[in-house]
Amino acid sequence: MTAALALARQAMDENEVPVGAVVVKNQQIIGRGFNRPLATHDPTAHAEIAAIRDAAQFLGNDRLQDCDIWVTLEPCAMCAGAIAHARIKRLYFGAGDAKGGAVEHGPILFGQSTVHHKPEIYGGIMAEEATALLKLFFQSRR
Amino acid sequence: MTAALALARQAMDENEVPVGAVVVKNQQIIGRGFNRPLATHDPTAHAEIAAIRDAAQFLGNDRLQDCDIWVTLEPCAMCAGAIAHARIKRLYFGAGDAKGGAVEHGPILFGQSTVHHKPEIYGGIMAEEATALLKLFFQSRR
Repeated sequence: MTAALALARQAMDENEVPVGAVVVKNQQIIGRGFNRPLATHDPTAHAEIAAIRDAAQFLGNDRLQDCDIWVTLEPCAMCAGAIAHARIKRLYFGAGDAKGGAVEHGPILFGQSTVHHKPEIYGGIMAEEATALLKLFFQSRR
Repeated sequence: MTAALALARQAMDENEVPVGAVVVKNQQIIGRGFNRPLATHDPTAHAEIAAIRDAAQFLGNDRLQDCDIWVTLEPCAMCAGAIAHARIKRLYFGAGDAKGGAVEHGPILFGQSTVHHKPEIYGGIMAEEATALLKLFFQSRR
């Protein structure tokens, strides 16, 4: 999660909402991403999507077997859907997101009967650090 | 929708599940995509994501203002989330998808109180053609 937080800081340096993510397999980081929809002109460029695409390229496979994802913020519906498609084994996230989150909030996607893959879910990891970054970012933009 | 169906056929030619999508602005197609997670080693490479990314590159903006999306199959949670992030104005889709769909089925994403953007939704457009393609594809793989 320390690596994911470092990526979130990189997003903040580029004036993007600070969220970072890494994909880990066999205790090795194989995918990295941070939120950057503005710079890339890409509404899908969330941290998780970037990290998953990066890891899938690394593995040469659209299924990330035995991979975990660590992300600083609770995933939205788009990212939770991508986590399911990628067959991620474990989802570790930092801060909960009552507004945009889709794991513990809103549609609670992995609790839906139609979801085709459900990772193990561990929330609240280094949540204070993740929240502090987000607060700092939004305060600086006022 | 005819253009989206042609893209779905292109997916089938590449042995991918045949789904196609186009983004339209001012009666002009500005984004195209078809489903190709296998060829691209990318679990996020659904038709809608590809078409949205294509259109966002064309516009140089992560928000697709006054744009509509036409897709041959009911979007999944990932793609419905992307449609919300992109601020798509109208969603036109072909066949419903009881298993993977997230618009009329499963989480019914745009009905959630936390969704930050809800397009106008028109389903069932040329649904027979879309369904016929999908059936043909899955029959050919048996």
